[in-house]
Amino acid sequence: MVRFFVSAEDLEKEDVSLTGENAQHAKVLRLKPGEMVLLCDGEGREAVCKVESTDEWLLRAMERRESQSEAAVKVSVYMALPKADKLEHVIQKATELGAYEIVTFPSVRCVSRPDEKSLKKKLERWEKIAASAAEQSGRGRIPKVLVLGSFSEALTRAAQADKALMFYEHEAALTLKMALSSGGYSTVSLLTGPEGGLEEAEVTQAREVGLQVCTLGRRILRCETAPLCALSAVMYDAGEF
Amino acid sequence: MVRFFVSAEDLEKEDVSLTGENAQHAKVLRLKPGEMVLLCDGEGREAVCKVESTDEWLLRAMERRESQSEAAVKVSVYMALPKADKLEHVIQKATELGAYEIVTFPSVRCVSRPDEKSLKKKLERWEKIAASAAEQSGRGRIPKVLVLGSFSEALTRAAQADKALMFYEHEAALTLKMALSSGGYSTVSLLTGPEGGLEEAEVTQAREVGLQVCTLGRRILRCETAPLCALSAVMYDAGEF
Repeated sequence: MVRFFVSAEDLEKEDVSLTGENAQHAKVLRLKPGEMVLLCDGEGREAVCKVESTDEWLLRAMERRESQSEAAVKVSVYMALPKADKLEHVIQKATELGAYEIVTFPSVRCVSRPDEKSLKKKLERWEKIAASAAEQSGRGRIPKVLVLGSFSEALTRAAQADKALMFYEHEAALTLKMALSSGGYSTVSLLTGPEGGLEEAEVTQAREVGLQVCTLGRRILRCETAPLCALSAVMYDAGEF
Repeated sequence: MVRFFVSAEDLEKEDVSLTGENAQHAKVLRLKPGEMVLLCDGEGREAVCKVESTDEWLLRAMERRESQSEAAVKVSVYMALPKADKLEHVIQKATELGAYEIVTFPSVRCVSRPDEKSLKKKLERWEKIAASAAEQSGRGRIPKVLVLGSFSEALTRAAQADKALMFYEHEAALTLKMALSSGGYSTVSLLTGPEGGLEEAEVTQAREVGLQVCTLGRRILRCETAPLCALSAVMYDAGEF
């Protein structure tokens, strides 16, 4: 079924018209009266609707439900701000893979240090990438993209999850599997470093706040590969596939 | 330790000189006499060497051993030939993630249909990408990149693994976890489709040859995301991290 993201308010209406980009999309798809489409509020609620009329793309809601494609486990991807388009790549892929949110923040070896204005512009772009990937992958929820002001803020926020994990290339003993082995988690934070890796002092700080420091194996992963590898493994462990 | 890929022959020598790109790389790194480096034959064997002289980058082998960074499980990534640079992306990432080999082949909905000449040129490029990613990620083995002539050939070859798996977006019942649950596998084939997905007839054909058809969850993954998600999960399941 074709999916359209609408406001939570529109989702509650008996009859709703598609507008703006949604209307354009409906036109391109040549939707016909009687066809069924899916409206999503981007927060995990959706409505199965029937096309009533193509004049103003009028839809009638038939059934409202929770999204069927969201993961039961809420995984937050915390990635230290990388260079150039790497975060864009991670946002797109993490959205497909079912991440709950993507959080970026500064760390000591981050090369990219955008000012507030350019960061605001980037954030808008990142949000668009998340929305578009959510639509393409059939998600009922658009992951939030958050920009935090400091490394400590990221640690404190990440530490609130049932499983709060940092990945560090010099850790060899604790595997992700060990860290997840107790099971019974419903929220997970996965924190990874920038191109140059995390500094030892940052790893120590993370441990103090309560994060577990894990390895992702004996091969050195690029900064954009690590979060997606960890996310895939967590989704697998949680029984998503 | 810095790594250089050399021929299997050079790896067996007591004293060996770095040449060509390796010599240039050594120069850039300003290696000094007494420093230790690692020579790898790209097949999983390596030698710990000491720099004897920087004149001709003469090294003395101190110890030969099996590579410490190769996965015990041999995972072959079978990806139907995608458009443009997507296979390059998958080769780079699958190499980092520890794939044993990457195999590409035609399938019904493949849009990319390069002729033999252009395929030969592409293959050279793909091999370079694998070599470079192997070096960067610290692997002892450069994954082979293979181009097969037909879909049936891919199926027959893939089916020889202990776990031969195809991923199909319309499969919902059999998860990857179920397929791997019996354990005791040392070779795995992961087969995924092109941009437009696999045709039902192709999935039937795969089942007949003995592949198990699995889901990667309720979200639709892009063709370049699916193999990397599956590979990450298999490495996790096999105890790599």
